[in-house]
Amino acid sequence: MAEQADVMELAKRRGFFFGSNEAYGGVAGFYTFGPQGAALKRNVEAAWRDQFTVKLGNDEIEAPTIMPEPVFEASGHLDGFDDMLVECAECGESHRADHLVEDAIEGIEDAEALGIEAVADLIAEHDLACPACDAALAGEPVEDFNLMFETAIGPGSGQPGYLRPETAQGIFVEFPRLKEYARGQLPFGVTQIGPAYRNEISPRRGIIRVREFTQAELEQFIDPEADEPPIDEVADVAVTLYPAPEQEADDGGYVETTIGEAVADGTIASPWVGYFLGVAQAWYERVGIDTDRFRFRQHRSGERAHYASDCWDAEAEISGNWIEIAGFAYRGDYDLSKHAEHSGDRFTVFKRYDEPKTIEAATVDPDMATLGPEFGADAGDVADALASLAKHDPAAFDADTVTVEVDGDSYTVDSDVANFSIEERTESGEHITPHVIEPSFGVGRTVYALIEHAYATDAVDGETRAYLSLVPEIAPTDVAVFPLVSDDRLVELANEIASSLRHEGVSVAYDDSGSIGRRYRRQDEIGTAFCVTVDRDGIEGDGDATVTVRERDTAEQVRVPVPSLSAELSALFDPESDRTFADLRAAYGAVETTVTTDSS
Amino acid sequence: MAEQADVMELAKRRGFFFGSNEAYGGVAGFYTFGPQGAALKRNVEAAWRDQFTVKLGNDEIEAPTIMPEPVFEASGHLDGFDDMLVECAECGESHRADHLVEDAIEGIEDAEALGIEAVADLIAEHDLACPACDAALAGEPVEDFNLMFETAIGPGSGQPGYLRPETAQGIFVEFPRLKEYARGQLPFGVTQIGPAYRNEISPRRGIIRVREFTQAELEQFIDPEADEPPIDEVADVAVTLYPAPEQEADDGGYVETTIGEAVADGTIASPWVGYFLGVAQAWYERVGIDTDRFRFRQHRSGERAHYASDCWDAEAEISGNWIEIAGFAYRGDYDLSKHAEHSGDRFTVFKRYDEPKTIEAATVDPDMATLGPEFGADAGDVADALASLAKHDPAAFDADTVTVEVDGDSYTVDSDVANFSIEERTESGEHITPHVIEPSFGVGRTVYALIEHAYATDAVDGETRAYLSLVPEIAPTDVAVFPLVSDDRLVELANEIASSLRHEGVSVAYDDSGSIGRRYRRQDEIGTAFCVTVDRDGIEGDGDATVTVRERDTAEQVRVPVPSLSAELSALFDPESDRTFADLRAAYGAVETTVTTDSS
Repeated sequence: MAEQADVMELAKRRGFFFGSNEAYGGVAGFYTFGPQGAALKRNVEAAWRDQFTVKLGNDEIEAPTIMPEPVFEASGHLDGFDDMLVECAECGESHRADHLVEDAIEGIEDAEALGIEAVADLIAEHDLACPACDAALAGEPVEDFNLMFETAIGPGSGQPGYLRPETAQGIFVEFPRLKEYARGQLPFGVTQIGPAYRNEISPRRGIIRVREFTQAELEQFIDPEADEPPIDEVADVAVTLYPAPEQEADDGGYVETTIGEAVADGTIASPWVGYFLGVAQAWYERVGIDTDRFRFRQHRSGERAHYASDCWDAEAEISGNWIEIAGFAYRGDYDLSKHAEHSGDRFTVFKRYDEPKTIEAATVDPDMATLGPEFGADAGDVADALASLAKHDPAAFDADTVTVEVDGDSYTVDSDVANFSIEERTESGEHITPHVIEPSFGVGRTVYALIEHAYATDAVDGETRAYLSLVPEIAPTDVAVFPLVSDDRLVELANEIASSLRHEGVSVAYDDSGSIGRRYRRQDEIGTAFCVTVDRDGIEGDGDATVTVRERDTAEQVRVPVPSLSAELSALFDPESDRTFADLRAAYGAVETTVTTDSS
Repeated sequence: MAEQADVMELAKRRGFFFGSNEAYGGVAGFYTFGPQGAALKRNVEAAWRDQFTVKLGNDEIEAPTIMPEPVFEASGHLDGFDDMLVECAECGESHRADHLVEDAIEGIEDAEALGIEAVADLIAEHDLACPACDAALAGEPVEDFNLMFETAIGPGSGQPGYLRPETAQGIFVEFPRLKEYARGQLPFGVTQIGPAYRNEISPRRGIIRVREFTQAELEQFIDPEADEPPIDEVADVAVTLYPAPEQEADDGGYVETTIGEAVADGTIASPWVGYFLGVAQAWYERVGIDTDRFRFRQHRSGERAHYASDCWDAEAEISGNWIEIAGFAYRGDYDLSKHAEHSGDRFTVFKRYDEPKTIEAATVDPDMATLGPEFGADAGDVADALASLAKHDPAAFDADTVTVEVDGDSYTVDSDVANFSIEERTESGEHITPHVIEPSFGVGRTVYALIEHAYATDAVDGETRAYLSLVPEIAPTDVAVFPLVSDDRLVELANEIASSLRHEGVSVAYDDSGSIGRRYRRQDEIGTAFCVTVDRDGIEGDGDATVTVRERDTAEQVRVPVPSLSAELSALFDPESDRTFADLRAAYGAVETTVTTDSS
């Protein structure tokens, strides 16, 4: 298995990612994607968009990262998006109080669920010390720290703004307009890929827990009473599930099943969640996750937000730990209802009935000229109570008098005074608040998992090499082109080949420095599938010029005529073509090389 | 010409962009790109990447949007990135003081250059009033307001951070690592596309001046003494230039020329800037800018940053105003030198000489046992002065005694005491600070310009219609597919066509609601090049099913057999294919329709 340190070293040296602002000492929790990492990340985003936006027929939007305070009052982030903070009085270092407790005390796995007071007590009871300076933390206050980055929009009396903690709010808050674009028809889905922020107390685990990251989220809006997912499309997808009951059982384990079966037998409660797990499983396989180090884990009841009726995480095994790389939640009408309540705007769609319905509505029109003199200042409340009674118990008005209670006092009036009546109304439909299913992907974590799962080592020509066995769709570079030596004719031909491949949309690295072995290693380490080498042998003689083409994982080489090169390479990348490197070997013959595989 | 109001209305109604957070009353300066706008914007970014990253052989990175304070101390943004603020004491509204002065007083075009005090005086002298409440502003303080959004990284004693005002700093600050990826070889270029922020005092002009926007920037690092751009590649590109002298002359006007000529005659001072103007002109034409409403305007000396030796803006005419949509600056070594100075890290590359050079270095090694007793506390300063003299005037040591000055006093010592000598050193190269040329594009402004330039109206079948004549590469949707009526067979065939086109990577809109005329208008307004309609005529009879294909700009229709449809549409989109809609008309015959063009 790849060691995290090896992968991090390779990532930095080869330009996948590295800690930002190192010239200024660095700032924990911020990473920069270098040329290779940015290309890999864009490819992952493009593959996600192809599946979750284009193929599913959804709409993608791009909302600002700064949002005003009322949005987060409604979403609950202003009050509830906290971590437990304890600060060392000695050295001033801040720590996650719940993590300290979990790390130090056997048997405590979810300290956050215990609450602030219990965690403060545990720190005192167990004499926990500051990990930075070893000073005692007993007695230091444990406090909620809000994880949103705050800023001020505009000068002076400007309003508070926050960097969004999830891209989702940029979709929810615009629902009234987005539903117009969907012409008010459920179901519809809206996606977004973009930055999100979380002001971690003490970022750790390198690129896994960072303060600024990229999310790819889909908000699927449905009519819970009418809309079913096309579950048949993914019924046969095989998945490794780790349901909550298995996690809680002493001898619990994974359930190897299919989406169809898991939804049918209730292991996955929501068919919509099941559908997206199936779509996601196929997508992860497409981009090259190692399925032996991948599972869907259900949230246990304590982990789940109160409004989420079912929630599963996609988890990848990274350096021996299972890390969440995506979440799939059935969120009900929580998000849209909250924004409706806080904004006063309408976050509903109009659901038309198949047939118009005739509705009987009981109403009253109390005679205030009678109630006023009789009840004085209480007359208005009595009238309201009569209206309420009419709705809930219209039969009460059948008697000669009706009695209502206001603030514990009973008031009796003649039924005539209430002017009770039943009105008929024809309604063509009703306004319903859609439910939301949210598949939410962490792009950076996915990128990291793909790199680690692709990392392999073997021996070529007697030397150990590391390489990334990335699938072509997400590899940063498609092809590398090398002139073997700096001979004008070789350089010219290499440039021509690089340029013609680039104009065909192939991503090309051109490299003319260092030994050929070193150039191959460099491309192996960034996961370039093929290296084209222009050598003297290839331009001597009468026929077409030839070049060698080397495959990354086998390190095997074949010699291909230049006029066929573009077509051959395109066919190797084309997912709809069956052409493989073995076909090239059969067609053109292999060039000698020695490979010993000792890869995991 | 398109009216801005028409374009803004269409943009909102059709999902290009709209003010964010409207449910909460909106926040000035923030826009959300709806489904059509986000797709258009991504296409513009992809076209930019193809040209400025891939075709130019540069590297793209992705850095965080939050950066720590020392970065902006070095870059100058902490001190100098200000606008002039005046706040109304009556209503509390904030205003750009320089804009108030420019709007109210004839003949003042660049009030910012006058300075804070002069602007405060002008407000008082001219009795300027608050545009919001009409209260007098005379006497209110005019202050510098820093335009960076500030936040705090981490809890408690966390450090200040800022949302980057330009993507460039994320490149400059990582130069020590980025040069390693370029293996220390100049020239090389690094690009970035991402969010940037500017906390405007009072955002105006809709989407043109916003608080959060997307930049696409290229930092080209060169050796100023050795690296020349491949100017021949763009020598023949025709451009409309508006040089500074023409702007300042009474009868000044545009210069219609080519990049080659403008660089040769010095109109464009820097060949590197000229090169990028040529690349940019071709790129703007490719994505569909109206070249009659496009120019390159040189900064006048007062506009230019002190370190920029030449600077040009790409400007588009938008609703009658010339708006900057990109900037091209020769920034010298300003950025890298400042970061070197502030961080103490090395922001240089090692430039190897063709031949190692032998350097003669004059040194002294003063005998302190003699100087100490003679000059006491001043002995150290005298020794330093001798070392300095050796560097600047080695011949002085030829005499028996040498005299140096320290703080105005002369000190004379025997030359022997100085231990003067000439040492030879062989140096293989030197550390140089690269110069930077920065093409910097505003993506949102480009998107807006392309929409307004593409906006046209005409009459089809006697009705006025608006359409966006976008080039296929950037149009949000490639093809729309409609079943004419909701007949099962038509719906099934339409779905099959949509699905097979989607699997070929074509972006497809499927629309089965409303009259066919309304569906055509909807696609016209979002710039979809072709609409495919599945009708009964097409599925009756014995042969292959047929569908109509309608071209957006002409509203002409042809009837195409379904088995040929994918290939025909792919050929129309393929930039390397010559196939046009006229060829389809010739091959399959036109379907009747009436178009009257009254477009601008």
